[in-house]
Amino acid sequence: MNNFEFYNPVKIIFGKDQLKKLPLQIPSGQKIMMIYGGGSIKKNGIYTQVLSALRDYQVIEFGGIEPNPHYETAMKAVEIIKKENVGFLLAVGGGSVIDATKFIAAATLYNAGDPWDILAKNTVVKASLPIGTVLTLPATGSEMNMGSVITRKSTNEKFSFLTPFSFPKFSILMPEAAASLPQRQVANGIVDAYVHVIEQYLTYPSNAPLQDRFAESILLTLIEEGPKVYLNSADYNAMVNLMWCATMALNGTISCGVSGDWSVHMIGHELTAFYEIDHARTLAIVLPGIWKALRNEKKEKLLQYANRVWNIVDGSDDEKIDKAIQKTVDFFESLEIPTKLSSYNLDTNAVNRIVDRFEERKWKAIGDRQLITLEVVRKALEFQL
Amino acid sequence: MNNFEFYNPVKIIFGKDQLKKLPLQIPSGQKIMMIYGGGSIKKNGIYTQVLSALRDYQVIEFGGIEPNPHYETAMKAVEIIKKENVGFLLAVGGGSVIDATKFIAAATLYNAGDPWDILAKNTVVKASLPIGTVLTLPATGSEMNMGSVITRKSTNEKFSFLTPFSFPKFSILMPEAAASLPQRQVANGIVDAYVHVIEQYLTYPSNAPLQDRFAESILLTLIEEGPKVYLNSADYNAMVNLMWCATMALNGTISCGVSGDWSVHMIGHELTAFYEIDHARTLAIVLPGIWKALRNEKKEKLLQYANRVWNIVDGSDDEKIDKAIQKTVDFFESLEIPTKLSSYNLDTNAVNRIVDRFEERKWKAIGDRQLITLEVVRKALEFQL
Repeated sequence: MNNFEFYNPVKIIFGKDQLKKLPLQIPSGQKIMMIYGGGSIKKNGIYTQVLSALRDYQVIEFGGIEPNPHYETAMKAVEIIKKENVGFLLAVGGGSVIDATKFIAAATLYNAGDPWDILAKNTVVKASLPIGTVLTLPATGSEMNMGSVITRKSTNEKFSFLTPFSFPKFSILMPEAAASLPQRQVANGIVDAYVHVIEQYLTYPSNAPLQDRFAESILLTLIEEGPKVYLNSADYNAMVNLMWCATMALNGTISCGVSGDWSVHMIGHELTAFYEIDHARTLAIVLPGIWKALRNEKKEKLLQYANRVWNIVDGSDDEKIDKAIQKTVDFFESLEIPTKLSSYNLDTNAVNRIVDRFEERKWKAIGDRQLITLEVVRKALEFQL
Repeated sequence: MNNFEFYNPVKIIFGKDQLKKLPLQIPSGQKIMMIYGGGSIKKNGIYTQVLSALRDYQVIEFGGIEPNPHYETAMKAVEIIKKENVGFLLAVGGGSVIDATKFIAAATLYNAGDPWDILAKNTVVKASLPIGTVLTLPATGSEMNMGSVITRKSTNEKFSFLTPFSFPKFSILMPEAAASLPQRQVANGIVDAYVHVIEQYLTYPSNAPLQDRFAESILLTLIEEGPKVYLNSADYNAMVNLMWCATMALNGTISCGVSGDWSVHMIGHELTAFYEIDHARTLAIVLPGIWKALRNEKKEKLLQYANRVWNIVDGSDDEKIDKAIQKTVDFFESLEIPTKLSSYNLDTNAVNRIVDRFEERKWKAIGDRQLITLEVVRKALEFQL
C-alpha cells in the first residue's frame, strides 16, 4: 500500500423527503444562485420544491448548463454572480451541473489571470465560493468529490481540475428525483460509475486487499442493481443503491493507497470533445480496447476481476481474461450502450484524429505505470473499430 | 435503505514517515498539550519524533492515560489545560488515549454544569478544543470518528458520548509505530475492529447491498491479514491493512442507511467496568452468546455471514449458523482470546451482577429491533458460562 492522504468533508444527506433540510445547510442572509440544466427539474417538480425550501433567501436562477458543461456558459454565470454579489451557489441536477458549479465558484474568485488557465494549465485555485448540491441523477460522483470536467466549445477541448475548495459543503442525494430519468441517462450513469471504479482498481496488485474488495463490492452491486433501475427508474429500492454506488465510486475511498489509471477517461474525453458522444459511452468504447491492448501488463488484476466480479473460474488465463472482457462488454451492451466505434459511425479517421491531437499536445505516457503510450492509445482504439 | 446523513471531515495521513507533516496540520502559535498513555511511545521512539516535529510549538505533556481511560485522570488534564491556556490537544497512542482526549476537549469547554453529565446523561456538547491524533495502534477507529468511551473508576461505570465536535482535525496513522506491539494488543485490536463491523452488519436485511459488501470486505480482510500481524507485528505489509481495516470499521461508512445493534458493546462495557477485562475480550465473550440467544431473529443475516464470510454452503440453516458461530469463536480463540466467562474465572454471579445493574438502570430493550431484553442479556451470558 502506498502512503496516502484522505480528506472528504462533504456532508451527505440521503433519501426521501430530505429537501426540508436544505435551509439548515446554508447560512441565512446569503444571496444564492441556483444553477441547473435543461429544465428536467421543472418537469419533475424539484425546481418548485427547492425554491419553496429556499423561500427565506434571495435566489437568482441560472439554467441551461449543458451535458459536458461549457466553459462559455459557465463564464456567463460568473459575470452575473459578480454583478449581483451572490454568496452561495446551489447546483440542482446531475454531474454536469455540479461540475459547472465548481468551475463557476472557482472562476468567480480567480484573480491570477484568465480563468481558462485553471483548466488548460491547471493553475492553482486559492479560493472558491461555497457550494451545495441537490443531486437528481446518479452517475459522476461529483456531489462528493473535488473534481470537475469542463468543455470549451469553441476549441473542442475538454479538461478537468481538482481543488479542495471544490468540495461541496453539503449534497442532498434524492433517489426519488431520479424516478423520471430516461433509460439512456440511467444507462450512462451505471457505466460511468462502473468505469470510475475500474480506473482505480484495475491496475496492478499493490497490497491493498480492503480497497480491492471495496471496489469489487461497488462493481458487483452495480451489476446487480443497475439493470433493475435501467428497466424501471421508478424502482426506488434499486435506485437508492445505484445512487450510493455512484457516489462511493468516486469519493476517494477506494483510491486510498493505490495508483490509478484514468487513461480511459483521457481518451474518452477526446471522443466527446470531437464527436459529442455521451461521456459514459466513450468510456464503454475505450475500456475494452485498453484491456485488449494491455492484457499482459494488467493480467493479474484482470484475472482477479474475472474471478471475483464475474465468477470466472474455468479455462486458461487468456481464456479467463477474454471472458471477463466479453462479460463487461455484454453488460454495457445490455444497457444499449454500444462499445464499437463503428456503432457511432466512426472509423480510422477518428483514431488518427485523436492520436494526432495527443501528439500535438506532446503526450507523454500516462496512466497505470505510464503504460499508456501513444502506440497503446492507437492500438486500444483500433481494437474497437 | 433508511434515510441517512454522513459527515466525516477527519483528514487522514497514512503510512511511513508521515510525522513530518504534523506541524503543517496545527496552526502556528498554538500551545499544545500532548496526551499519551503508559509510556510505550517512549520505548518505540514516537515520543521523541513527535516532540521533534513540534519543536516550534510550546508543548505541555500529559501522560498516564489508562486503557479504558478514567474520568478522574481526564479531569486532571482539564484542570491543567485551563490553567495553562492550552489551545490544541494532540493525542499520541491508541484508542484509549484518543477517547480520553475527546472527553478532555469537550469537558474543558463545558459550562452547563458537571462534565460527568456529558457521559452519564448525554447532555449536549456545544464546543470542544480542537484535537489531532497520532495513531500507533490499530483497534478502536476513534481516530476517524466522533465517539468516545470513558470509565469512572470510583463507581465502576463506563459510558460513551458522541458529538461532531469530537472529530479530530487530522489523524496521522503510523503502521510502523505498531511494529513493537505485544501480541495481546494486536489480538485485541483485531477483535475490536471485527466486532465493530458485526454490530453494524449483523442485524437484518435492509436493502443495503453495498454496505453489506463493504462490511464483509472488512471482515474478510481482518481474517486474512489479522493473523499475519498477530504472528509478527513488524510485518508492515500486513499491519497497513489491519490498521486501515480498523479505521474503516468505525468511521460511519458501513453504517450509512442501516440500523445497528451495539448490544454486544453495552453488555461488554459492564464486564470491563466490574472485572477489568480488556474491552475486546468482553466483545469476544458476549458476541457468540448474543448470536446463540437470537439465532432465529438474526437468521437471515447469520446465513449471509456464514456464506459470504466463511464460505459455508453445506447443511441445514441451523447447521450453517452453528458453523458460522463456531468459525467466529475459533478465529477469536486462534488469537488467544477466550470466549467463555469461565476462562476469566467468572460464573453465574457475574451474570446476575450485570443483569441486576441493567435492571437498576431501568433497562429498556435495546439494540437491533429492540430485541435485546433483559432476558436476552441473561440468556446470552449464560450461553458463555
